Amino acid sequence: MKAIRVHAYDRKPSLDDVPEPVIKNPLDVIVKVRGAGVCRTDLHIIEGQWQDKSGVALPYTIGHENAGTVTEIGSAVTNVSVGDSVILHPLATCGLCLACRNGDDVHCTASDFPGIDVEGGMAEYLRTSARSVVKLDPSLEPADVAALADAGLTAYHAARKAAEHLRPGHTVVVIGAGGLGHIGVQVLKALASARIIVVDQSAAALELAKDIGADITVVADGTEAQRVLALTGGAGAEAVLDFVGEGSALASGVAMLRRAGTYYVIGYGGTLKVPTIDIISTEINFVGNLVGTYNDLVELMALAAEGRVHLHTVKYRFTDFQQALDDLHHGAVRGRAVLVPDDEFIAASH
Amino acid sequence: MKAIRVHAYDRKPSLDDVPEPVIKNPLDVIVKVRGAGVCRTDLHIIEGQWQDKSGVALPYTIGHENAGTVTEIGSAVTNVSVGDSVILHPLATCGLCLACRNGDDVHCTASDFPGIDVEGGMAEYLRTSARSVVKLDPSLEPADVAALADAGLTAYHAARKAAEHLRPGHTVVVIGAGGLGHIGVQVLKALASARIIVVDQSAAALELAKDIGADITVVADGTEAQRVLALTGGAGAEAVLDFVGEGSALASGVAMLRRAGTYYVIGYGGTLKVPTIDIISTEINFVGNLVGTYNDLVELMALAAEGRVHLHTVKYRFTDFQQALDDLHHGAVRGRAVLVPDDEFIAASH
Amino acid sequence: MKAIRVHAYDRKPSLDDVPEPVIKNPLDVIVKVRGAGVCRTDLHIIEGQWQDKSGVALPYTIGHENAGTVTEIGSAVTNVSVGDSVILHPLATCGLCLACRNGDDVHCTASDFPGIDVEGGMAEYLRTSARSVVKLDPSLEPADVAALADAGLTAYHAARKAAEHLRPGHTVVVIGAGGLGHIGVQVLKALASARIIVVDQSAAALELAKDIGADITVVADGTEAQRVLALTGGAGAEAVLDFVGEGSALASGVAMLRRAGTYYVIGYGGTLKVPTIDIISTEINFVGNLVGTYNDLVELMALAAEGRVHLHTVKYRFTDFQQALDDLHHGAVRGRAVLVPDDEFIAASH
Amino acid sequence: MKAIRVHAYDRKPSLDDVPEPVIKNPLDVIVKVRGAGVCRTDLHIIEGQWQDKSGVALPYTIGHENAGTVTEIGSAVTNVSVGDSVILHPLATCGLCLACRNGDDVHCTASDFPGIDVEGGMAEYLRTSARSVVKLDPSLEPADVAALADAGLTAYHAARKAAEHLRPGHTVVVIGAGGLGHIGVQVLKALASARIIVVDQSAAALELAKDIGADITVVADGTEAQRVLALTGGAGAEAVLDFVGEGSALASGVAMLRRAGTYYVIGYGGTLKVPTIDIISTEINFVGNLVGTYNDLVELMALAAEGRVHLHTVKYRFTDFQQALDDLHHGAVRGRAVLVPDDEFIAASH
Repeated sequence: MKAIRVHAYDRKPSLDDVPEPVIKNPLDVIVKVRGAGVCRTDLHIIEGQWQDKSGVALPYTIGHENAGTVTEIGSAVTNVSVGDSVILHPLATCGLCLACRNGDDVHCTASDFPGIDVEGGMAEYLRTSARSVVKLDPSLEPADVAALADAGLTAYHAARKAAEHLRPGHTVVVIGAGGLGHIGVQVLKALASARIIVVDQSAAALELAKDIGADITVVADGTEAQRVLALTGGAGAEAVLDFVGEGSALASGVAMLRRAGTYYVIGYGGTLKVPTIDIISTEINFVGNLVGTYNDLVELMALAAEGRVHLHTVKYRFTDFQQALDDLHHGAVRGRAVLVPDDEFIAASH
Repeated sequence: MKAIRVHAYDRKPSLDDVPEPVIKNPLDVIVKVRGAGVCRTDLHIIEGQWQDKSGVALPYTIGHENAGTVTEIGSAVTNVSVGDSVILHPLATCGLCLACRNGDDVHCTASDFPGIDVEGGMAEYLRTSARSVVKLDPSLEPADVAALADAGLTAYHAARKAAEHLRPGHTVVVIGAGGLGHIGVQVLKALASARIIVVDQSAAALELAKDIGADITVVADGTEAQRVLALTGGAGAEAVLDFVGEGSALASGVAMLRRAGTYYVIGYGGTLKVPTIDIISTEINFVGNLVGTYNDLVELMALAAEGRVHLHTVKYRFTDFQQALDDLHHGAVRGRAVLVPDDEFIAASH
Repeated sequence: MKAIRVHAYDRKPSLDDVPEPVIKNPLDVIVKVRGAGVCRTDLHIIEGQWQDKSGVALPYTIGHENAGTVTEIGSAVTNVSVGDSVILHPLATCGLCLACRNGDDVHCTASDFPGIDVEGGMAEYLRTSARSVVKLDPSLEPADVAALADAGLTAYHAARKAAEHLRPGHTVVVIGAGGLGHIGVQVLKALASARIIVVDQSAAALELAKDIGADITVVADGTEAQRVLALTGGAGAEAVLDFVGEGSALASGVAMLRRAGTYYVIGYGGTLKVPTIDIISTEINFVGNLVGTYNDLVELMALAAEGRVHLHTVKYRFTDFQQALDDLHHGAVRGRAVLVPDDEFIAASH
Repeated sequence: MKAIRVHAYDRKPSLDDVPEPVIKNPLDVIVKVRGAGVCRTDLHIIEGQWQDKSGVALPYTIGHENAGTVTEIGSAVTNVSVGDSVILHPLATCGLCLACRNGDDVHCTASDFPGIDVEGGMAEYLRTSARSVVKLDPSLEPADVAALADAGLTAYHAARKAAEHLRPGHTVVVIGAGGLGHIGVQVLKALASARIIVVDQSAAALELAKDIGADITVVADGTEAQRVLALTGGAGAEAVLDFVGEGSALASGVAMLRRAGTYYVIGYGGTLKVPTIDIISTEINFVGNLVGTYNDLVELMALAAEGRVHLHTVKYRFTDFQQALDDLHHGAVRGRAVLVPDDEFIAASH
């Protein structure tokens, strides 16, 4: 079969002929890949930024946002059947450690991350585990949801945690109305009835945010914290979801918090710096967010099937992968780029 | 190897020679059984009461409360090694269904129950799954804790749920100071700082309850509800754990509840009957309790290793299994009967 | 001022001249009543059904669903000002007992219930406590929301508790699509993204339920439990909200529950009867629901201000109170009857 | 009566004759002060450090950790009677704002802080509010528990929040074994069954920590984080309670956290600095802690009455207040200094 493999860092990946994966263990599942999200992390991998962290041996197949059709299952697989459409949770978890046993599989102590540290899904077929596959509602096309498998799942995870504490009359601020932020806004809209304020530097991003559920938008021009305070009668917001996590977003985001409010850290890059006197005198909290759990992905797919969460995607033929990578690199992709099998490609994206 | 098998209902089980179990799947674990609890359910199985429910084909090996030493593991097992002492969660769960993925494995939609519907652990060796085995602290002897695997786990599960809502100054009532009730009292003592009132018909059981942590004991003589109300200034208890679940225990137990209090149903046999006006006018709640999860068993073993939960056991040689069953049938076992390998038997029980 | 007072049970109340209420304590608030809900409980009071329970001395003013405008405040009142539009929580709570201190003021050990056991709000003015008044958003008219103060609040309270456990992909069943049930459906729609199945005997009620958010409706014809099971792949619903609480609703409602599901008891009249074996083997739960807390009312008003919860009301002139009572008695009110000051009456109801 | 009043900053307070307080409002309570904790904050007030923050007009009476006997109550007080022993919550809260209504009275938007911004309790009598007084169990002496009213309450609040997430087998680290830390250890011991590791620079403080419940002690010598990691098999602790909040405690404390672990900030002075990549990649959380709620104080007093929380105090005659302040200033008080009425002074402290 064909697979997109990295042979050397800082070189273009190539389209190779490799053997098709086969079932080795009772929980193995073979999936024909029908949608493979192209992510900024793929660019970073090619540039070699993940070389030390992943320790993966070259050449290997990239691709960590996948959906497709089950073509073969191991003897112990009970949750999917051949022919099922599935989306893949980014981690292949062990199911045995205490974290897995507690429904907190993101903290599995023995997980693989296909496309990062083992063979990924920019290929015709992918071997994964029954523990990674979520069956899709018939209304969902794999190529439409594949790119929700990682970034969208992270946004869902954070927004779901925040929604548990939001009540009617509360205010939640979303900082950063990019890809993740947009999913976050849609999830908040679906799971809570708090007022949603979206903050971003880009007027265009804010426009789009309004379309998908933001109640109020605020341009991040240095006065955003005062604006949010003014919008909340001086009290601040019960929750702030920070999809930026660097630069001035952190300080201004913390300043938007109400007493006893909670700051959800999702974006990263900067350093959180808060005097402990400020933390204790207002009893504010900070909550870290990694990717979502398997069950988070099940729930996100339920929202997608109901049309409550929609991801704008641009489809590329599988063999046009280099074009997709180049477009992403040059900021020419609006929404998320997704590779689809050449024979399933339909020019129109949506 | 030797195994205790039921060949026909209402007949004594026999000690048979059967092949030793072998690894078939990557997650299989072979355990040399060093403690097998003898439970009232075993008597019921032999009497045929479970015939229809379990649908098991005779002959088969009984025994569902097991602990021992790992002698062989499948290729995918990462949580235990050969030589580890382990206790076995009563269910062999799939790890794939939504309940398993949510840490709620008791509601696994595809679990086996060894000793009930598949081959059990009253044998020299048992094949189980890596998902069932909990590694024991070196301070714990398998024979001492085996009988906590099912009944003790149920008590832990209910007491842990109750403890989450109990605060200093609250009152919790334990109805039924038998085997499960005693574990329940010890768990409540370890996990909460509420006042514990134990109610039972037997003065001897109440005496023992005092030794293991009951703050107050009340004889169940028909006035127990009034007594509990008097002890709480007329208000009632924040929580009632009912290990009886039949007869007059239910009505008198419900009468002990405070407004907004919660009734934990653990014992069974009777029917809960409460006018809906009483449920809504005081906002009381009823919570069902089955056996505990895998993680509950991990936590119960942590308490056992710290000496906070202790089960009184009476050891029998494996080949004396009929004596153990007879003693249990005649109410002649104080605490729990446990079968141990003949060559590991030490006369003194504790 | 004028007040509608009961002078003798089983007699029509009369429109009396009584002194206007005055501020007696620092936390007192005087409200000009601009909407007074007419409730079935008022009929029951007049019939004498509450005589023993309330112990109120006749004559007294009825009316326990009120909203209006603040005309005077005591010296310690800080949460409302003269001129504010307010809705009144049905209970005047002490603010001192542990329940009040815990945000659980419904279980206040020293509350008054105006219109039931002290002077109520079917009058031109009402003296209440600062602890009862919730300031209304300027977009809300007191007469439009008054009838949400008691029945609507109860529905909010139960639906809010259920929503905390509902996730995308879950199913929630609402039994009884009457006044409370309709509010419940709207609240569930606002606070959760689970699929909502509404069950009722009336096709007309189900039609309306669809308009306000039900995803699926099921006629209660004796097969409703099977229907719900079929709609959930045989598994049952994660939550059932029972606004009926009597007759066959209870047994069929319990049969709709999924393993580990929860049954919210809101309606009353019948008796809940469940074998304890059924409670423990599936780990189901039952949760009682009284009226909502003060903060629940704040949140319900936030939803009302956003247009997410709407109550159909029929307005009557204050002096036409007997007509309103008669219409209610004869089932001739569609939605809720509300008395408004004669000079504020506008023929059109909505 | 006599009162200890500050007349000018950086001058010694004087013992003045002032009028006894009288009941002004229905919720007022007059308490004869029988124990007044002397706190480092009192020194800071005298030095003028609170001048700007409190904005209090001089002269005024200091003292914010009080317990005593009720001598008079207002007409609306229902929770205490004349003659009751009570401890005073440090804040006099409004009972009307949303925070108060939610059981979160620490965030009351209109509270007074006696001894800081209004007349305090270093006097023979103090006027407080029914919302501040917690009735003491007869077994508790006001002078013994007075100093728990503020610092002890803060430690309880944080330890209670942490205990809600701690399970058997978990590890909790307490950084700083001073006055607050010691209360924290005792509370953790009472409310949870996790293993408690205490970290401090002082061997003597660690010795005492062992006596009151620490399972393991670790000297803070720069290697404490490695030590804690080693004690947890390299994984880290589920919770860290930081009673220091400055210097190297923060960085080393954060390094002790397990994946998905939580850091409770209680001490203050330094600045929390954590790269967002570290927060998200391990999903760690930070939780601020101010003083406890009224209900926290009720619970802490329940633990004190059961002998589970004990505070070492040194008693001084009321008129020896300057000696107490001087001893505290010179670090010569072991435990907490408490002023008692001269005629109730007994030389022996305990």
